[in-house]
Amino acid sequence: MQLLKDRICKDGILLPGGIVKVDSFLNHQLDPNLLVEIGHAFYHLFKNEHITKILTIEASGIAPAITTAIAFGVPVVFAKKQKSMNVGHEVYTSQVFSYTKNVTYDIVVSKEYLKKEDRVLIIDDFLATGHALRGLSNIVTECGAELIGVGIVIEKSFQNGGKELRKSGLRIESLAKISSITEEGIVFD
Amino acid sequence: MQLLKDRICKDGILLPGGIVKVDSFLNHQLDPNLLVEIGHAFYHLFKNEHITKILTIEASGIAPAITTAIAFGVPVVFAKKQKSMNVGHEVYTSQVFSYTKNVTYDIVVSKEYLKKEDRVLIIDDFLATGHALRGLSNIVTECGAELIGVGIVIEKSFQNGGKELRKSGLRIESLAKISSITEEGIVFD
Repeated sequence: MQLLKDRICKDGILLPGGIVKVDSFLNHQLDPNLLVEIGHAFYHLFKNEHITKILTIEASGIAPAITTAIAFGVPVVFAKKQKSMNVGHEVYTSQVFSYTKNVTYDIVVSKEYLKKEDRVLIIDDFLATGHALRGLSNIVTECGAELIGVGIVIEKSFQNGGKELRKSGLRIESLAKISSITEEGIVFD
Repeated sequence: MQLLKDRICKDGILLPGGIVKVDSFLNHQLDPNLLVEIGHAFYHLFKNEHITKILTIEASGIAPAITTAIAFGVPVVFAKKQKSMNVGHEVYTSQVFSYTKNVTYDIVVSKEYLKKEDRVLIIDDFLATGHALRGLSNIVTECGAELIGVGIVIEKSFQNGGKELRKSGLRIESLAKISSITEEGIVFD
């Protein structure tokens, strides 16, 4: 998605450890026009797959997931990162390690909102080591629903999470794939 | 907003402590069609106010904020609930007590994304005790931006947060205002 790649080059900030900070349009401030285009792009990629549910993880996954859900006309379920007093006892859980925050946390999805009849599209803002995606994928497996595919806004393919998950046969579509970060800047696949 | 009130009556679950659980369409599973209508409703209420920025708080505020931002064509900034390694040092912060989670946490907004020239509309999913709204409002004040108003999806007016904040002259528009919860069900203002 050229619009997205151009935006990453223009406004992305490179930090040590291979971190690409896109807080100005995706992770802290959100550009609604770009997010609508992202939703359309995922719809175009998966429109024939009879998707019934979008699954994502709070907090940065919610914005691209909701614009994708608007395009599909199906609900989003966002996994919560910790048990709160308001989540029921009947939940699917998985553990996720956050590379950027250097902590392990539980993700939780209520069994009420994910059913084995569902055809699930996972949407997330980033794919790097793949920990979050593996956690979401485990929840779909535990539920018995069908995981149709994954839509990622920005994949850092040099961190290999996507490569390993694709080996298992999972369809992962990334709108911008960063293959390396050099002194000259970002290189896309 | 009748569509929203009907949905709260149909799918809201009442829990002890005056908690109205709307996880099936607003706080865990998200109904994209309803959220688009919510965005339109806030646009209709504030369209003449030359809003330049939507401010909300992760995670449940993000969905209504992004559909409102799509209607206005302006960016969203969502306050983060804890400092992460990716947030810059130049931040506005405020403390917020969560009634549902019974914890106090810092909320953080990068100074890069909120400027004193901004005309800010705060959007949030719930208004009850008003702690989150006060925290967001403090951040706008600290920045020197103009807080034009507040759009709330569901206000629990029996918890008085909104009443006190309106006394200070703040314009707060709630799409559904719950005045009491009785044995017969939910009563709206």
